[in-house]
Amino acid sequence: MFFASDNTSGAAPEVMAALLRANDGYARGYGADAIMDRVRAQVREIFEAPEAAVFLVASGTAANALALSIACPPWGAVFCHTQAHIAEDECGAPEFYTNGAKLVLVPGAHGRMTPESLAQTIARTGTGGVHGVQRGMVSITNVTEAGTAYTPAEVAALTAVARSHGLPAHLDGARFANALVATGVSPAAMTWQAGVDILSFGGTKNGLIGAEAVVIFDPAKAWEFELRRKRGGHLLSKHRYLSAQIEAYLTDGLWLRLAGQANAMGAALARGLTALPGVSLQHPAPANMLFPVWPMGTHARAEAMGAVYYQMPAPDGAEAARLVASWSTTDADVANLLAALSPR
Amino acid sequence: MFFASDNTSGAAPEVMAALLRANDGYARGYGADAIMDRVRAQVREIFEAPEAAVFLVASGTAANALALSIACPPWGAVFCHTQAHIAEDECGAPEFYTNGAKLVLVPGAHGRMTPESLAQTIARTGTGGVHGVQRGMVSITNVTEAGTAYTPAEVAALTAVARSHGLPAHLDGARFANALVATGVSPAAMTWQAGVDILSFGGTKNGLIGAEAVVIFDPAKAWEFELRRKRGGHLLSKHRYLSAQIEAYLTDGLWLRLAGQANAMGAALARGLTALPGVSLQHPAPANMLFPVWPMGTHARAEAMGAVYYQMPAPDGAEAARLVASWSTTDADVANLLAALSPR
Amino acid sequence: MFFASDNTSGAAPEVMAALLRANDGYARGYGADAIMDRVRAQVREIFEAPEAAVFLVASGTAANALALSIACPPWGAVFCHTQAHIAEDECGAPEFYTNGAKLVLVPGAHGRMTPESLAQTIARTGTGGVHGVQRGMVSITNVTEAGTAYTPAEVAALTAVARSHGLPAHLDGARFANALVATGVSPAAMTWQAGVDILSFGGTKNGLIGAEAVVIFDPAKAWEFELRRKRGGHLLSKHRYLSAQIEAYLTDGLWLRLAGQANAMGAALARGLTALPGVSLQHPAPANMLFPVWPMGTHARAEAMGAVYYQMPAPDGAEAARLVASWSTTDADVANLLAALSPR
Amino acid sequence: MFFASDNTSGAAPEVMAALLRANDGYARGYGADAIMDRVRAQVREIFEAPEAAVFLVASGTAANALALSIACPPWGAVFCHTQAHIAEDECGAPEFYTNGAKLVLVPGAHGRMTPESLAQTIARTGTGGVHGVQRGMVSITNVTEAGTAYTPAEVAALTAVARSHGLPAHLDGARFANALVATGVSPAAMTWQAGVDILSFGGTKNGLIGAEAVVIFDPAKAWEFELRRKRGGHLLSKHRYLSAQIEAYLTDGLWLRLAGQANAMGAALARGLTALPGVSLQHPAPANMLFPVWPMGTHARAEAMGAVYYQMPAPDGAEAARLVASWSTTDADVANLLAALSPR
Repeated sequence: MFFASDNTSGAAPEVMAALLRANDGYARGYGADAIMDRVRAQVREIFEAPEAAVFLVASGTAANALALSIACPPWGAVFCHTQAHIAEDECGAPEFYTNGAKLVLVPGAHGRMTPESLAQTIARTGTGGVHGVQRGMVSITNVTEAGTAYTPAEVAALTAVARSHGLPAHLDGARFANALVATGVSPAAMTWQAGVDILSFGGTKNGLIGAEAVVIFDPAKAWEFELRRKRGGHLLSKHRYLSAQIEAYLTDGLWLRLAGQANAMGAALARGLTALPGVSLQHPAPANMLFPVWPMGTHARAEAMGAVYYQMPAPDGAEAARLVASWSTTDADVANLLAALSPR
Repeated sequence: MFFASDNTSGAAPEVMAALLRANDGYARGYGADAIMDRVRAQVREIFEAPEAAVFLVASGTAANALALSIACPPWGAVFCHTQAHIAEDECGAPEFYTNGAKLVLVPGAHGRMTPESLAQTIARTGTGGVHGVQRGMVSITNVTEAGTAYTPAEVAALTAVARSHGLPAHLDGARFANALVATGVSPAAMTWQAGVDILSFGGTKNGLIGAEAVVIFDPAKAWEFELRRKRGGHLLSKHRYLSAQIEAYLTDGLWLRLAGQANAMGAALARGLTALPGVSLQHPAPANMLFPVWPMGTHARAEAMGAVYYQMPAPDGAEAARLVASWSTTDADVANLLAALSPR
Repeated sequence: MFFASDNTSGAAPEVMAALLRANDGYARGYGADAIMDRVRAQVREIFEAPEAAVFLVASGTAANALALSIACPPWGAVFCHTQAHIAEDECGAPEFYTNGAKLVLVPGAHGRMTPESLAQTIARTGTGGVHGVQRGMVSITNVTEAGTAYTPAEVAALTAVARSHGLPAHLDGARFANALVATGVSPAAMTWQAGVDILSFGGTKNGLIGAEAVVIFDPAKAWEFELRRKRGGHLLSKHRYLSAQIEAYLTDGLWLRLAGQANAMGAALARGLTALPGVSLQHPAPANMLFPVWPMGTHARAEAMGAVYYQMPAPDGAEAARLVASWSTTDADVANLLAALSPR
Repeated sequence: MFFASDNTSGAAPEVMAALLRANDGYARGYGADAIMDRVRAQVREIFEAPEAAVFLVASGTAANALALSIACPPWGAVFCHTQAHIAEDECGAPEFYTNGAKLVLVPGAHGRMTPESLAQTIARTGTGGVHGVQRGMVSITNVTEAGTAYTPAEVAALTAVARSHGLPAHLDGARFANALVATGVSPAAMTWQAGVDILSFGGTKNGLIGAEAVVIFDPAKAWEFELRRKRGGHLLSKHRYLSAQIEAYLTDGLWLRLAGQANAMGAALARGLTALPGVSLQHPAPANMLFPVWPMGTHARAEAMGAVYYQMPAPDGAEAARLVASWSTTDADVANLLAALSPR
């Protein structure tokens, strides 16, 4: 009953098999491996973006911080949601990689910025001439930190606000596959067709051992990205093992199948939870992450039964949790968790 | 006939097996996995350093840059050899992670600083009061970029110079196992007993897919290291796969066996090369890296036979190369390369 | 009728005279001038702090950013008011000098943090272990950006919250003299006796041409400050001209006389404004900065009469302004402004 | 007998008079003062560069570091002479402002790079693809740290090498006026006509209290410069006092008269020194800075007579010094120093 995070899961068998295949013989290092050539072609095809630049790194924080660093100057503001991973969970990696850009927080219910809240925050920022930080870029997370998803139209509405100020848009897609499955749209529809300039395309949380792609739809800054990646220590010498993970991930739709399982388990959990007395969800849960509120005493009971998840701040007289399903969550896991949470 | 770099080799079978074992089930992320607990104990035992702090990252550049960043302030000088990897091959990662420290280059034959050249360089630096950069630290590479090795006594002589100025010492051990095998000494003898404060303990070049340990003998800066690692994007969420590599590496002496094979193949190559007419080695080659000079025309012949290696700047009328053997180099590989290089 | 900012005023005659005296003959550079020796002694005596380290720079942004950089690590949070100058008006200088620390904003009416709002913001920050930025320091502005002042007791209440978390406290005293005059307390009472560790002691806005002192009550970080000042380009070679300004400023209480005049003019303005029909002040105005709200049409009338000040966002159906008096504001200036603002 | 540095001199009377005039009344801050409008026009006229962007700062280190930061990316190499002020005397300010660029040192006799030494250093750098730092820019100092001067043709030869690699060129003109007087050429001839893109145009060492102009001949990066200046804490609020210094400096050729006096005194000193037994100059001395070698015992005698200058490392059996004349050095000063140095 592991629902703490999708990154406590292992890797999918197809991925491990690909690693073993990749291990055979010699390969050129630093991204010049033959598998990476194929990965580049896969990503471009899947995203319908024949010019896109594609780079791999081993962590989501690296993907995000490097992506921001090529889009925002040191004196720029990165507009993002109050709860964004880049704001809350990366120990200042964005500030480090951008040499001191400022994250300016945009409020919004359920982890989502709205065009209005974004526009208002942008309007208040960058009005001080040379004295204040300048408007720099927008970063959108999908699936959000609240487990909700933006539709392409919602993403496009946010990037339209960005574009009206001449700002580029980044999408933090640590759970990009889950977002696509939740909304039923194509990779292109969710990204460049919706105005996204750079994507952190996550894999680690969805069945890899540690690999994320950065997809830069306008390749003008590709070389700068390469230099920043190297300089950040994120260009792996035995790069083939990153390539192999992503190749397996993108082959025969594995990535969407894995996310589909995670989301299905999320949905099953949502149905089960809301059927329990006194349990409700704080946010819509279209993907694999749920934020239930439940009666006092539930934590103790669940913990005694071996359930593993994060406890969250809760309203008075209640308890709250974050539950995350993954590609490896099973029907039995869900049933067991629901049993553990049920009053006796 | 792949002699371009030890990082073009794959991973050892024991390592892949460990990855597969590690993949089973759920594990806590971010270094809280049970394998990492065992790794920490292994490293401490092998280094006879029960207090040492041990952290894992996926690249050697990350290990080095993070190690420097906790030892040298932004206004400090890092004294290192002219050809050091940190100076030549990391695209400024040390400057980035230290927020602008200055690498001050120390000359020396065969890739080695001498106590005299180090002392002279230190003496010339940091004499300008507040106007110049301050003396910061010393970084030593073993095996060096020229393929030579320092003995513990030679390392101790350098760290003694450092210590006489109150400076800490870092050892870049991207090929640490090869250095130990070449000199026949213990990990403790080569590091803390020789005055080394922080070690970049390489694994990637010696049979892993991508894992390096940073060993901090005085753990006072361990928490700072953790924060800098996270902030650099180098704390991997599915950390167990780093742990598993290092655990396998350190189990039953695998790391030394792998380096022993690489060094043995280096020695065989050295014997064979120096037996060829007109071929000599530019540097002593006690480990797995050789820098031969040979007659004009040899490159063309070798390339035609499929030999892969780096060509190097050469004296007039000759050609030069860098040849690197690895854990996976075989007697046959050596024989084939020597045949390809031999005049017909 | 110049009420745009106290930095549009010139320098006091005593200051210009001191510059002329300082210009005579040769002087050692870079802070080794004899005048600086006297300044150091003056500051220590005035602050009753015989151990304090004292450094001069030419701008308030430099004073603040350098002060923060010795108190907060790159991965730290600087807690400050939402409207703090360091947050709004320094184009990211704090982030630049700290190598990416994060300013975490503390709400509060009238430009003032309260112990409660500070404690709550601190409590919410730094709870994510290695994943989030760490609690770093507190920065308090006095006189605040809203023109209000903290009493020593109020400062002490804030630094007590800081200290309960082990955090140092900085005071941005760009208008420190005005704050002392407004509250009638001693320099020591407002700073180290109230728990302040580092002070940006402003002079530029109060009758100098451009000089600010940084007073570090615990001198352990004095050498680091000197290096950071040099590295930031803020160690002036002909330092005597900074020294001379501050010496004149602190001689015979000039600094308090100048602030006394500014505050007196602020008070006169406040009395006059609130006597006008439909005019009120948005914040208490104990010092030299006022934020009136007045009827529509007043701006146009005042501008036509030659009044110079900043227009501010206002409630519907009204206009708002920022008015700043300075050491050089006269009774006639106040009378003229009030006449210009009065309905005819 | 103050020959330690030209920055131990005071300011010229015309400059102090200008400061007093500027002090009258109110002025807009932050560079929007009316004097700055005139300064901008003066600089453009004097440099025959009607499009040039002109900014003022209070220190030479700030001028240099900011200039480099808009011309060189963080992963770039700044090619400069081994003894360049930016390399030796700014405590890493270039690394700080560029976020970690690397200064790559170019050897050359008498403080001068040659086209050959520059070309060779550039050729050796930036050949490692993504692994090494990239070629970034060239920085030339005139007058050099050895007191020698480049002619415009020599500057053009260096910038031609830079341009052949697509690199911009910066001129550190802390003693720019002295260089012009020494070579008898126009400001335009020494800068943009010789291929210089950005100039640090010094004033502090030549009779100001602390003001330097940065002249950017291609204004495309002007706004970036303004933001970096603000962010560095170098945008002075009471900017008029910087403007006034530069206005006086450039009015009626004051700057060239002051440098003419300094150079004339340098020449007198050179004549006198080389007439003394056993005294020679280590470098040609066309401007105001001399590096004599003289017999043992001379230092003691000179010091006893009250001469103030820097002692320098010397060949065995001799003593060496750096002597700097300034705008305020008189014939009597020179005569007195020569007398103090003469054997009795």
